[in-house]
Amino acid sequence: MLLNCDLGESYGAWKMGLDSQVMPHIDLANIACGFHAGDPTVMANTLSLAKAHNVGIGAHPGYPDLPGFGRRSMALSDIDLRNTLHYQIAALDGMAQVQGMTLSYVKPHGALYNDMMRNDVILTQVLKTLSDFPKPLKLMVLATAKQAEHARLASQFGVELLFEAFADRLYTDEGQLSSRSQPNAVHNEANVLAQVKQLLRHGTVTTASGQALPLKADTLCVHGDNMDSIKQIVAINALLKTQ
Amino acid sequence: MLLNCDLGESYGAWKMGLDSQVMPHIDLANIACGFHAGDPTVMANTLSLAKAHNVGIGAHPGYPDLPGFGRRSMALSDIDLRNTLHYQIAALDGMAQVQGMTLSYVKPHGALYNDMMRNDVILTQVLKTLSDFPKPLKLMVLATAKQAEHARLASQFGVELLFEAFADRLYTDEGQLSSRSQPNAVHNEANVLAQVKQLLRHGTVTTASGQALPLKADTLCVHGDNMDSIKQIVAINALLKTQ
Amino acid sequence: MLLNCDLGESYGAWKMGLDSQVMPHIDLANIACGFHAGDPTVMANTLSLAKAHNVGIGAHPGYPDLPGFGRRSMALSDIDLRNTLHYQIAALDGMAQVQGMTLSYVKPHGALYNDMMRNDVILTQVLKTLSDFPKPLKLMVLATAKQAEHARLASQFGVELLFEAFADRLYTDEGQLSSRSQPNAVHNEANVLAQVKQLLRHGTVTTASGQALPLKADTLCVHGDNMDSIKQIVAINALLKTQ
Amino acid sequence: MLLNCDLGESYGAWKMGLDSQVMPHIDLANIACGFHAGDPTVMANTLSLAKAHNVGIGAHPGYPDLPGFGRRSMALSDIDLRNTLHYQIAALDGMAQVQGMTLSYVKPHGALYNDMMRNDVILTQVLKTLSDFPKPLKLMVLATAKQAEHARLASQFGVELLFEAFADRLYTDEGQLSSRSQPNAVHNEANVLAQVKQLLRHGTVTTASGQALPLKADTLCVHGDNMDSIKQIVAINALLKTQ
Repeated sequence: MLLNCDLGESYGAWKMGLDSQVMPHIDLANIACGFHAGDPTVMANTLSLAKAHNVGIGAHPGYPDLPGFGRRSMALSDIDLRNTLHYQIAALDGMAQVQGMTLSYVKPHGALYNDMMRNDVILTQVLKTLSDFPKPLKLMVLATAKQAEHARLASQFGVELLFEAFADRLYTDEGQLSSRSQPNAVHNEANVLAQVKQLLRHGTVTTASGQALPLKADTLCVHGDNMDSIKQIVAINALLKTQ
Repeated sequence: MLLNCDLGESYGAWKMGLDSQVMPHIDLANIACGFHAGDPTVMANTLSLAKAHNVGIGAHPGYPDLPGFGRRSMALSDIDLRNTLHYQIAALDGMAQVQGMTLSYVKPHGALYNDMMRNDVILTQVLKTLSDFPKPLKLMVLATAKQAEHARLASQFGVELLFEAFADRLYTDEGQLSSRSQPNAVHNEANVLAQVKQLLRHGTVTTASGQALPLKADTLCVHGDNMDSIKQIVAINALLKTQ
Repeated sequence: MLLNCDLGESYGAWKMGLDSQVMPHIDLANIACGFHAGDPTVMANTLSLAKAHNVGIGAHPGYPDLPGFGRRSMALSDIDLRNTLHYQIAALDGMAQVQGMTLSYVKPHGALYNDMMRNDVILTQVLKTLSDFPKPLKLMVLATAKQAEHARLASQFGVELLFEAFADRLYTDEGQLSSRSQPNAVHNEANVLAQVKQLLRHGTVTTASGQALPLKADTLCVHGDNMDSIKQIVAINALLKTQ
Repeated sequence: MLLNCDLGESYGAWKMGLDSQVMPHIDLANIACGFHAGDPTVMANTLSLAKAHNVGIGAHPGYPDLPGFGRRSMALSDIDLRNTLHYQIAALDGMAQVQGMTLSYVKPHGALYNDMMRNDVILTQVLKTLSDFPKPLKLMVLATAKQAEHARLASQFGVELLFEAFADRLYTDEGQLSSRSQPNAVHNEANVLAQVKQLLRHGTVTTASGQALPLKADTLCVHGDNMDSIKQIVAINALLKTQ
């Protein structure tokens, strides 16, 4: 079970995330591409840091919305979505090649990720966009109750999916993340580790209604916001090694 | 003598340049990369148009200044200049590959082009930036009295130069373009054709002071702003065919 | 019946709209405020032009989306919508005062206008935002079948409404504009004048289904995109004078 | 001796500065206006915070350069500089009025501040811009060896100057701040307090060359970047009370 984390979310003089502290503990770095966060120098520095720690790299493209950090849904046309993704992925891909690195996957950010998980038209457009890119790129998506269906759709475009689960979030019965506005939507530390254990041993999560929902996860999403989240990553890593 | 033109300078709802009318008449399209002009969809459309007319493509990166159209000098640090260029070049390069096209050169835009031609520190940084890109890219620069010196500098970085001359601009004795604020800085149509003829037959331009300045130009820069400039391109092309 | 037009939609080097040609023929100028179009110098120039022609001025604020020209719906929070509006209105208001002019109304732009007309929560937030501004500002809205209801809502906030009608657009039975994707959504010139006449004489428009829908319009929205639209404004003005 | 501090420099999801911790200890808040930092909601929140602590407010406008945080000099035309300032000042002024507050001064930010202090053409343009604003606004400038000359220039435009000094920076003999790239350019805590004392008692600072340079300062610039800088403000305040 690989650990992935959103990184490179600083912008100019504004710092965000403890990238240098989280990088040693993760396997996959989702790197912002300049439209919702990240600027060219932040991107280059984040790539260097990933290289130093032998961490796999993915593009983390978002809606063109710096003031909203890509968290506000935007009604992009199909063609604008396609080109906006190609642009961001290509920018990071080329900058990675400058450092002798290889981009291997894409994880859409924020509102775009949510829109893609809720709307098969957008998911289909993202898959087609990746399949038209000149190198193979996997797509990281949320493992939900529909993951088999999503895998079939992706295979039509020759795109491999990386299913991710969240250690710290409560799931609905459909396998979506409970809204952060709900009570208990974000787990405390004990529940985080319990959810990881359950995923590893039983391949399930316990949903808000108490059901055991089967989820096959290739990777766990972790966070590098603050020292508490770094400690959580360390604890998850320790747990993974004992399984 | 190839004709090059700045294209893809529209942005969102704002249209600029008669791209579809100029593309049939040129050899090299300098395509804006989103920082001073051009958005992902404009870039994709400009690439398609170049492909349809079998026109070579180059990146036309600029300072990050949409409201100033990249025409205002900005004091970027060395590292920011490098990363800003890699980002823009990589974005266009990847979008070109999506369409099966190959980027072959870079021509900096506006104030960045001027700064590079006036300041060898910046020219050196641009050359190093291109030499570190994962594919060979020529650099288009102004053919001036220092062009042999510039060629030597570029060869140290393994970068080939494409020297461009201007058909419609008056030159100083140093081979710089006379400022547009000077009288006669921009030629009328007869003088445009006379300057092209002189470049072809004698490899010189007549400067503001009346001297014949030797210039070896690989390409002529033409413009697609309006119907008059399209007519000028057609006239230059007709002249080139008869030489 | 006053004529209003969206103006000041250029941005930096990009020109849009025949502002100097349309200004002599209109009564109210809706001036973009920099978030979807317009930059500070465009705004100052548009204000000067309005002053020269004694045209009333309103703020035309939009979503923060230059590449999408404010035409893409964005899910702003209540508080962000409020502050985004106050910022844009205040910027134009102060720049108007620099020229000794007085801002008298606000007309939201593009997707924000559409969202406001379709969603009473957003309309209410816009009304509250205007009522909290330190000077009285009217709100320009679409005259629809719900205009009486909208007037009552506005009066709760002490905001006066300016109802606008469109000369060139086909209406639905609810008094919304038919989507431009529908056939006949945009009238030809004869139908434009017929619709204006009917509004003036009978206070109705004929909807897509053939019904006569009562609409009380304070102002007609006209366009300054090209010479044809200028001619249309002249024709409408001629018609208004004969009524 | 009033204490002033740059505040409201967060942007969207990016936080910068300990605004809520520094506000209780200062007299004047220089609030960013959205071009180099600050967004409408950050501005509204910073105004509220200033109001709660009865702190005077000034506009802190910068070059239009979010990725460079306004720290990179940009060659704006005179008219663009004027309009860019009017826009930012007006936006903050109107938002202040929404909260019943009154803007009283302007302090340009970063590279614009430095350019203004080094170039009398720019200083003159800033003064003229303020004198044309519809309400009286003081201009905060660096107290240097030329402060009497600056005061005379300002009086020609009817603009009052607020001279600021820096507690933590070493001065050149001309009264400019030594570049941060110089050793000892930033004082340690003991030297900060010594410099404040000397300013209060003798109206001088000791320059890099050891000279006593007379400076009349209306206000001291302090910083709210981190807990150490908050402590420094508290220490300066304690010192001021005992004088």
